[in-house]
Amino acid sequence: MPQLGLLPGRAWTVLLGLLRPPPGALCIRAVRSHSQVAEALFASQLKPHQEKSNFTIKTPKGTRDLSPQQMVVREKILDVVVSCFKRHGAKGLDTPAFELKEILTEKYGEDSGLIYDLKDQGGELLSLRYDLTVPFARYLAMNKVKKMKRYHVGKVWRRESPTIVQGRYREFYQCDFDIAGQFDPMIPDAECLKIMCEILSGLHLGDFLIKVSDRRILDGIFAVCGVPESKFHAICSSVDKLDKISWKDVRHEMVVKKGLAPEVADRIGDYVQCHGGISLVEQMFQDPRLSQNKQALEGLGDLKLLFEYLTLFGVAEKVSFDLSLARGLDYYTGVIYEAVLLQTPVHAEEEPLNMGSVAAGGRYDGLVGMFDPRGHKVPCVGLSIGVERIFSIVEQRIKTFGEKIRTTETQVFVATPQKNFLQERLKLIAELWDAGIKAELMYKNNPKLLPQLHYCENMGIPLVVIIGEQELKEGVIKLRSVASREEVAIKRENLVAEIQKRLSES
Amino acid sequence: MPQLGLLPGRAWTVLLGLLRPPPGALCIRAVRSHSQVAEALFASQLKPHQEKSNFTIKTPKGTRDLSPQQMVVREKILDVVVSCFKRHGAKGLDTPAFELKEILTEKYGEDSGLIYDLKDQGGELLSLRYDLTVPFARYLAMNKVKKMKRYHVGKVWRRESPTIVQGRYREFYQCDFDIAGQFDPMIPDAECLKIMCEILSGLHLGDFLIKVSDRRILDGIFAVCGVPESKFHAICSSVDKLDKISWKDVRHEMVVKKGLAPEVADRIGDYVQCHGGISLVEQMFQDPRLSQNKQALEGLGDLKLLFEYLTLFGVAEKVSFDLSLARGLDYYTGVIYEAVLLQTPVHAEEEPLNMGSVAAGGRYDGLVGMFDPRGHKVPCVGLSIGVERIFSIVEQRIKTFGEKIRTTETQVFVATPQKNFLQERLKLIAELWDAGIKAELMYKNNPKLLPQLHYCENMGIPLVVIIGEQELKEGVIKLRSVASREEVAIKRENLVAEIQKRLSES
Repeated sequence: MPQLGLLPGRAWTVLLGLLRPPPGALCIRAVRSHSQVAEALFASQLKPHQEKSNFTIKTPKGTRDLSPQQMVVREKILDVVVSCFKRHGAKGLDTPAFELKEILTEKYGEDSGLIYDLKDQGGELLSLRYDLTVPFARYLAMNKVKKMKRYHVGKVWRRESPTIVQGRYREFYQCDFDIAGQFDPMIPDAECLKIMCEILSGLHLGDFLIKVSDRRILDGIFAVCGVPESKFHAICSSVDKLDKISWKDVRHEMVVKKGLAPEVADRIGDYVQCHGGISLVEQMFQDPRLSQNKQALEGLGDLKLLFEYLTLFGVAEKVSFDLSLARGLDYYTGVIYEAVLLQTPVHAEEEPLNMGSVAAGGRYDGLVGMFDPRGHKVPCVGLSIGVERIFSIVEQRIKTFGEKIRTTETQVFVATPQKNFLQERLKLIAELWDAGIKAELMYKNNPKLLPQLHYCENMGIPLVVIIGEQELKEGVIKLRSVASREEVAIKRENLVAEIQKRLSES
Repeated sequence: MPQLGLLPGRAWTVLLGLLRPPPGALCIRAVRSHSQVAEALFASQLKPHQEKSNFTIKTPKGTRDLSPQQMVVREKILDVVVSCFKRHGAKGLDTPAFELKEILTEKYGEDSGLIYDLKDQGGELLSLRYDLTVPFARYLAMNKVKKMKRYHVGKVWRRESPTIVQGRYREFYQCDFDIAGQFDPMIPDAECLKIMCEILSGLHLGDFLIKVSDRRILDGIFAVCGVPESKFHAICSSVDKLDKISWKDVRHEMVVKKGLAPEVADRIGDYVQCHGGISLVEQMFQDPRLSQNKQALEGLGDLKLLFEYLTLFGVAEKVSFDLSLARGLDYYTGVIYEAVLLQTPVHAEEEPLNMGSVAAGGRYDGLVGMFDPRGHKVPCVGLSIGVERIFSIVEQRIKTFGEKIRTTETQVFVATPQKNFLQERLKLIAELWDAGIKAELMYKNNPKLLPQLHYCENMGIPLVVIIGEQELKEGVIKLRSVASREEVAIKRENLVAEIQKRLSES
């Protein structure tokens, strides 16, 4: 029986196995319509999303429970992500769910209103963390850490208006990888993009594209187009909407709402509608206006180097220089990136989902310095995987295929066809547990045999050991393969070894 | 190189390996005092607990970050716990960090004041979860689940006065296993105790004892001793203190603070100072007063059956019937239990720690019904592992032995002795990553060889691949074993296969 995805080296194939299941391994198709199935214990009692009633038993708005089926899927996804982070030498780190309120203020720009505060119950003022980046920067500053490559998988909380159908929640997981430290330019940045490619490939989500740009290039464009510096932030947030609304609408917002001169907006439009590969970087170097701006030139120089390294990593064709990329968060200072899935579902029968970005990140060289009493800077670059959106895609795919997922890892079921065999069953199962074998039995003094066997078929348990009067007399145990329904008698003292042999073979 | 503890079947030996390290595998002892060590990247920059300054960069009171070293230890512990839960057929479940405030009210008795509330920012009134049991009961009622065996590992939050030295925090992990459903008596209850034994044995924390009793027996004692029913709760919470203060002090509290007649207190004293095995259960059955109480008889009958099953499971000698056991929480209705470590440190040089209980649980047959609109009951029994206290013990042990723990899983370091080899290093490392090999390099255009090799020794990386002019010319790569310092030249095209061979052998 396969170890379900807990071995890092196998993670890729295991997730592949989940998405395209080998028969009988991870997924059990619902092939039986037996009347006794209803008797089986624990089966199909889980309905993750209940219709809302007037009664107030519910999870808070924008949050959800993860059912056992969903937990299995989430664990598979996290396993692919964390395996990749470890493959790149990252260390784990955990921070509290809440921070001092002042740690989070002035880090998220317009989004600060979405932070959950805790009630003042005496003592410190606290807020739930909004991302994993600010706690990481706080950790670095607090412990005077100058260099660190860390990953962090944890929940974050945002009081957004939930549009749950798109996989947006108020409580969700982030999977972050960051490299802190002063290094030669663009080597860590290129590794972050390589990691994004490895994870998105490893999850088999179909084709994807990583848009890349640099905050300094966008600022340079604004400067050479004649945007007053006081309007940089406002215009940046308009540009940020280009993946959702058309240039016409963005231009309208710039001119009418934000008071930009129409000819300035048009000049911006010429730039931000461009995207391409390394050749676009070269083209921008030759641009008569942009090449006069020092900041933009620095950004372009770094991007050129970045593309060189991405080519060596074999992922340059997945990356597009996109001048419309702005990224919402305040703390970015250099290269920024965002991965989007290209909307061709792998299988024709799947409904397309509008998923937005599934991973993003960038360079933030100033954030740690904001926490340091003397303002010492620690340059950082990192990425965050939007695992909830990926989860929605995988979940929908499983639903489309009607796959049933094993929610337990039980290997052996201890059964009896006779009454008054509880004592023998308990002795036997303790022996299996003590040998490290995953085993279950029915919590009944006198269960009937058929429901016990049906439970195994429903739950995908591969082996059954059966003990009865005959077996007890002969000093044997019957070992039954659930799939083939073959039974053999095994000497009691050889049972554990035989089971371990069978499990290692399958 | 061993897969660090992520394979369930190996969890026990891996944790054993952590506590008593095989040379060079999980732990790298600090055997080198080389002057160049300081040059090595990433090494020893982590100081988990910083001295407090006037500056407010800190974690909230009663919370902490977990450093990479601590994360490794915690993951090992959780792995032992979760492997055991899965061995017993449990499914995973996750619930939100916060619940509607009303879900949590009237569940925790006197402790309700310790619940963290969220600020009213418009919308629902929310509280951080206080344990994993109430959210589980809410989940069962909300989804009308009648049977379920689930585990849940997650953080919970309590506004306690932190005494951090004993491993008590305001944010901490709980590891819960529960069985919901109507079954034949004491079979699931016995499995819960078996699980506690397996986990505590598997963690190698020294000897332990599980105290067991039944809420109905304690209530029966109060009744037959003449405690007015209105005082049951108050007297119960006095009895609960018997593991911390003497009977004399508890009696004083009962009589002076809680107004109990002295002779009633003395009668209680005769009972609650008793503890023993199955023979004490038999003795209580014969007790002239207690045997007149229906509730107590039910409890004693169940305990008798429980001990019978525990004997079949081979763990009866770890369990003691202890009439002083009361358990604080309101929701218990039947058997209750609590595991304590017996304070003989495994090694003489360790300082003893006062750890209190490290695991506890019991039967709560009424909690789910509190959430069901029609009051339908789902009987439950479960246990919770106090992983923070266990963590403190293991951490102290590691400190005592001066062990250094590997915080990354990196298998190969890509090095060069020459300038201008960044391009070749990047191409090479991408090849390793793409083959699933955990690899790192220095983020420098022209690093010196010695710091690269020292980094590997410090971080416990077993293999180095070295590329230079000579190797490039000959189409080979040098493969170096860090431990033996032996180097061999490998044909470039065979490198990945050779590395995989070496890693699978070690």
